[in-house]
Amino acid sequence: MAGRRADDLEGDYAAAGFGGALGFGDAPALILVDFVMAYLEPSAPLYAGVEAEVAVAARLVAAARAAQLPVLFTRVEFTPGGADGGHFYRKVKALACLDRGSPLGNFPPALQPEPDDVVVTKQYASGFFGTSLASTLNAIGVDTLVITGLTTSGCVRATTLDALQHGFIPIVVSDACGDRDARVQEANLFDLQAKYADVMTSDVVLAKFAELAGKP
Amino acid sequence: MAGRRADDLEGDYAAAGFGGALGFGDAPALILVDFVMAYLEPSAPLYAGVEAEVAVAARLVAAARAAQLPVLFTRVEFTPGGADGGHFYRKVKALACLDRGSPLGNFPPALQPEPDDVVVTKQYASGFFGTSLASTLNAIGVDTLVITGLTTSGCVRATTLDALQHGFIPIVVSDACGDRDARVQEANLFDLQAKYADVMTSDVVLAKFAELAGKP
Amino acid sequence: MAGRRADDLEGDYAAAGFGGALGFGDAPALILVDFVMAYLEPSAPLYAGVEAEVAVAARLVAAARAAQLPVLFTRVEFTPGGADGGHFYRKVKALACLDRGSPLGNFPPALQPEPDDVVVTKQYASGFFGTSLASTLNAIGVDTLVITGLTTSGCVRATTLDALQHGFIPIVVSDACGDRDARVQEANLFDLQAKYADVMTSDVVLAKFAELAGKP
Amino acid sequence: MAGRRADDLEGDYAAAGFGGALGFGDAPALILVDFVMAYLEPSAPLYAGVEAEVAVAARLVAAARAAQLPVLFTRVEFTPGGADGGHFYRKVKALACLDRGSPLGNFPPALQPEPDDVVVTKQYASGFFGTSLASTLNAIGVDTLVITGLTTSGCVRATTLDALQHGFIPIVVSDACGDRDARVQEANLFDLQAKYADVMTSDVVLAKFAELAGKP
Repeated sequence: MAGRRADDLEGDYAAAGFGGALGFGDAPALILVDFVMAYLEPSAPLYAGVEAEVAVAARLVAAARAAQLPVLFTRVEFTPGGADGGHFYRKVKALACLDRGSPLGNFPPALQPEPDDVVVTKQYASGFFGTSLASTLNAIGVDTLVITGLTTSGCVRATTLDALQHGFIPIVVSDACGDRDARVQEANLFDLQAKYADVMTSDVVLAKFAELAGKP
Repeated sequence: MAGRRADDLEGDYAAAGFGGALGFGDAPALILVDFVMAYLEPSAPLYAGVEAEVAVAARLVAAARAAQLPVLFTRVEFTPGGADGGHFYRKVKALACLDRGSPLGNFPPALQPEPDDVVVTKQYASGFFGTSLASTLNAIGVDTLVITGLTTSGCVRATTLDALQHGFIPIVVSDACGDRDARVQEANLFDLQAKYADVMTSDVVLAKFAELAGKP
Repeated sequence: MAGRRADDLEGDYAAAGFGGALGFGDAPALILVDFVMAYLEPSAPLYAGVEAEVAVAARLVAAARAAQLPVLFTRVEFTPGGADGGHFYRKVKALACLDRGSPLGNFPPALQPEPDDVVVTKQYASGFFGTSLASTLNAIGVDTLVITGLTTSGCVRATTLDALQHGFIPIVVSDACGDRDARVQEANLFDLQAKYADVMTSDVVLAKFAELAGKP
Repeated sequence: MAGRRADDLEGDYAAAGFGGALGFGDAPALILVDFVMAYLEPSAPLYAGVEAEVAVAARLVAAARAAQLPVLFTRVEFTPGGADGGHFYRKVKALACLDRGSPLGNFPPALQPEPDDVVVTKQYASGFFGTSLASTLNAIGVDTLVITGLTTSGCVRATTLDALQHGFIPIVVSDACGDRDARVQEANLFDLQAKYADVMTSDVVLAKFAELAGKP
């Protein structure tokens, strides 16, 4: 296997029955996964150079609010020292910068939640793991989760997988999800589109939100 | 970001604080993720050409049994038509070949569970999702999950992520996990080693199992 | 506290803010929790004398099918010896009668699933725990779970609690849920109505199902 | 069934195979479930008159710390207005007193966590539901959860059920768990001992903790 390489990877996957389209459901919500300073502060170890993705996410937030769609945020916070971080906290030493009280755990000025927005605080990669996110979305009747955030190979992919596993339609906004390296970004978007989600660009999602807002 | 590429990807990740070593805990178990005929039957759409990985997994099973370690198996089964398959069943049309009763859902002769082995039947990618796997491992005192299976980018990665999230040390056996394309295999092993698991080759794991079996 | 007893328990709870009414949502489903021979076979240790509840459940199934509502079933099955039963299998010795292959794990003639009904196999009390039930209900758009089954203090209460926790409206049908002792039945229905669910009699639910079926 | 009443309820249950003893495992932790001002402030609607249980819990905390056992706390907090409270927030109107920022959500002076204690913030009854509690206990090797808190019929029972379901041995300390009415307390301790946990008095648990602390 290790040497097996299809000349046409997309074609090989399509022929095998991967990559079907799910489409938008009736009730979407927008989620911002871990858009926190740890990835945005140039001096931080996790800095990912994703200023462009923050700007796209901000446009999506504005469009979602105009359509009166729920907007949810996730962030990571550990008990100082990592008593609730399990083996994840040992595996990724950089996570210590997200101990409770660290300014690197804050949201950037461009992506601030409003007082009644749900902010999900988690300790692991998936926004659904060890949180009541699925219950919240289910109780308010959301069937589609539009996913943006950081990083694509980490918390975004984990959240997308769990969105599908919990019974939601995951839509990943490719230019509103960032990672520290383009190859990692591309490889993960390929897997997500093949198996777990519809991957769309922000212009398609913005058009959908505008339609839901009753705009032409 | 989309254009950002580190010259030395491993070095860039290590400097950022990814990829720490977890090491074996005190009580490992071996899991075989979805080693079923759907990936092994050349005429099946999901055929992945992973005969070599099956042989390595068989050696790991023998070594785990010699060391009296728990050996667990996962498989996928859907209600015919997919009533319990959610959106995953729509996204990946090929999954219909795993409807209840399909011979493609069977384990191959080389990897058969024994009568008292736990066989976890699931509907989603992660062996932990929608199953009592975490409870079973926790109740019998397992702290480390040695992971093999199919496919690396799918059920293996999802199970590894959840093993970490549930508080177990995940050890992924690189040559006992297969995928349909080498580039996908490599990209996923990179992400797993960076963030969620220790990725080891079978010779290292076989030596550990032999040590636990009291052999030189 | 141990001696504290309100003269009017219902009144005391109402004044404290318990027991609000949830009401039916837009998309109910019916679930039958563990209606298996272990509780219905007079010679079995778990026999609960609940023939009347089986008859009521059968009427609810017919009415739900007439209204084209999803009907789901749960059952318990353990790996022989209990390798996947955890501490629950040790706590309740009687559970050994539900090892894989036992006829006591079968559904009674009056409550048989149809081929495409979802049958959830579990190892613990809650029909949601260690199963993909929440994902299945969520993916098909169910918002209300009408709950019947055995026993009220055990799997029915656990399933009802989890239905609420997962974001569904739980409606417990009091005369379609049985237990081995009337005092235990009454105490648990009191707690469920106070905190987690709307408790209704079958005539109210049958009228709602008839309305959904378009009957006067 | 509704009329069925055993003359000897304990005997009837024992004969049926309920109520086995689990015993302490090797690595216990102590958890304090929702010991917050909402239940302790006489003017609050949820006031339960459980001052005695608080005092017993404080003795257990001191003994657990002397034995260097993990001590964990749970509390409830909702987004103001209940956007993350689901149907639970609608069912129990009194829960609005636990919106973020309410002093009724604070721990009492006698039961304050230390800076590195894990404090689990939840939105539902079970301390495990929608939290990473199981992962935390699993990652640090805890196998037994000694449970105290408020109220027995609510968050204590839900947390105990989930402790068992997640693979931990639940030990409920009867005089360190309180409820607003003695009949409700007694009925729930009966169910817990029959099906899900070992119910012990604090003197037995204090003796065990003292033994673990190396005291005579």
